[in-house]
Amino acid sequence: MSRFLNDSLKDLTVYTPGEQPKEREYVKLNTNESPFPPSPYALRLCRLAAAQMQLYSDPECRDLKAAAAEEFGIEKDEVIFTNGSDEALWFAFAAFCDKKSGAAFPDITYGFYKVFADLYGVPATEIPLKSDFSLDADDYVGINKTVFIANPNAPTGMAISVSDIEKIVESNPKNVVVVDEAYVDFGGETAVPLIKKYDNLLVVRTFSKSRSLAGARLGFAIGNRELISDLNRIKYSTNPYNVNRMTQAAGLGALCDAEYFRFCRDKIIENREYLAAKLKKLGFTLTDSRANFLFAKKEGVPGKDIYLKLKEKGVLVRHFDTPRLNGYVRITVGSREETDALLHALEEIL
Amino acid sequence: MSRFLNDSLKDLTVYTPGEQPKEREYVKLNTNESPFPPSPYALRLCRLAAAQMQLYSDPECRDLKAAAAEEFGIEKDEVIFTNGSDEALWFAFAAFCDKKSGAAFPDITYGFYKVFADLYGVPATEIPLKSDFSLDADDYVGINKTVFIANPNAPTGMAISVSDIEKIVESNPKNVVVVDEAYVDFGGETAVPLIKKYDNLLVVRTFSKSRSLAGARLGFAIGNRELISDLNRIKYSTNPYNVNRMTQAAGLGALCDAEYFRFCRDKIIENREYLAAKLKKLGFTLTDSRANFLFAKKEGVPGKDIYLKLKEKGVLVRHFDTPRLNGYVRITVGSREETDALLHALEEIL
Repeated sequence: MSRFLNDSLKDLTVYTPGEQPKEREYVKLNTNESPFPPSPYALRLCRLAAAQMQLYSDPECRDLKAAAAEEFGIEKDEVIFTNGSDEALWFAFAAFCDKKSGAAFPDITYGFYKVFADLYGVPATEIPLKSDFSLDADDYVGINKTVFIANPNAPTGMAISVSDIEKIVESNPKNVVVVDEAYVDFGGETAVPLIKKYDNLLVVRTFSKSRSLAGARLGFAIGNRELISDLNRIKYSTNPYNVNRMTQAAGLGALCDAEYFRFCRDKIIENREYLAAKLKKLGFTLTDSRANFLFAKKEGVPGKDIYLKLKEKGVLVRHFDTPRLNGYVRITVGSREETDALLHALEEIL
Repeated sequence: MSRFLNDSLKDLTVYTPGEQPKEREYVKLNTNESPFPPSPYALRLCRLAAAQMQLYSDPECRDLKAAAAEEFGIEKDEVIFTNGSDEALWFAFAAFCDKKSGAAFPDITYGFYKVFADLYGVPATEIPLKSDFSLDADDYVGINKTVFIANPNAPTGMAISVSDIEKIVESNPKNVVVVDEAYVDFGGETAVPLIKKYDNLLVVRTFSKSRSLAGARLGFAIGNRELISDLNRIKYSTNPYNVNRMTQAAGLGALCDAEYFRFCRDKIIENREYLAAKLKKLGFTLTDSRANFLFAKKEGVPGKDIYLKLKEKGVLVRHFDTPRLNGYVRITVGSREETDALLHALEEIL
């Protein structure tokens, strides 16, 4: 820390991304990436776009917007594309959270919401999930704060119904409700159609998981055109060319290749069910994950121990050091081969 | 604007990027892009990286840091890579500008400094350049504000000496001085070596101009490791995976291809001198530009008229609507063919 840093930032706890070690090859099941390469069409468009890298990318992402409008049944001005969905989330924090009313989200969820709240000095109300990690929508009814809900949630993978989402949105007409649907394609129910009915709903999505583009950094938010125009105000005050040329092309290719998208998604769901059954046989307890990862606990074995022993054997998973989560590991659903490698390593350990 | 937008953002004037029209092909001399494609080596690495787009990019940009350390004679923890240099600049605003002491920069310079100041509610002191657009370093000596200086400056292209920069840095030990060297490779003098001597100097650079990667979005900042650690604090509180996989690869390729870099830079300088001589013959007055653009005025003809007539003829340049600049157009130095097309169109117009 330098002596020049703003006082308000000195005590900030920053986000810790999952580890990306380079010292050896791992079976990497720790950051919820797709085991499948990008769509061949996405790859081809991306490589073509690279040849014109000397020219700025389109700040308006017009081609992407047109494709998204068709894919999601929305208008072109009801979507904004961002440098990963993290950027969409912080745009939303910057635009809609103020120091008076504050933000509300579950105590167990994507770790970045708390980081954004701290960065902007927004008071954060962290509402405990129930003991089984389920979310009670009634906790958010009429809460009068900007609400952030990951659906499915991380790191549990558990989902709530769209009718629960609607209850929260409807009962908080003075505040924006942000629904983070990073994992929705693997078995959740999307709230996107509700944006036509409610002007206070913002749905955030990503190409990192179900579209195999984590390394391209592409996210987006869908909502009422006035909400989107507010997010654009943040974008054009910080980084108008936020999405580069290759990523715009790759995203376009991925959006247009519906067949490949469905193939990968179905395979991942199939592998998730396969892995879940095997883990249960090994004595693990699981949450009901609708995401591309499982959240698993073996009675009497701390999550950290499993993590460390698996790492020794060349398999990376993620564990969390907080009291409610330290019994668990979060395991990305990989390819069948990766899944079997994990299972083999687990059998040796236990 | 929605009814949910934070009050502090309602009056914000956002940045207006140069136009990127799609309705027809233009000779595009309006956004200071390179007329040369990316280095073949950058292109090859970028395309290879695309095949692994399903995996997150390295949040630490380790390969890029190693290459930059070698190229610029610095340590790996004295540099941070960003999603374009705009991101480096706003990180610096967020980290180092406070509402008490405020920021200072010239009245005529890169338009984004004022936008950042407004976004963060930082009082901005805009110091008038002299009537010939030159900057008097003494205006900044002991000013006790966070200083932002583009060197060479935009849109004039005029440069100040490193000894002037040093005078400003040395006389403001309590504040960070940010030197934005977007255009330095075309004839400016870099302040990078001074970072070893002063802990309050931050140099911001970009791959958009001299490295032919505007569409890849890659910038960086060089400074004392504690300054860099402060910028990382902002990065890890907003968007840790800020630089995507293809761009990291392209940047690495561009940094390693010194020969191609020198070839393109020398050609652009040569074309600039060629264009300057021709414009003078046509009766234009020019500033002494050390950048990849010229700032030109034809007595009695408003810049907007020239801009509009050139646009009709399929040539895009940039003009500015403010009182001190409205006589001028800013013309990117393109290839020899683009330059001749511009000159031909100008001859027809005048």
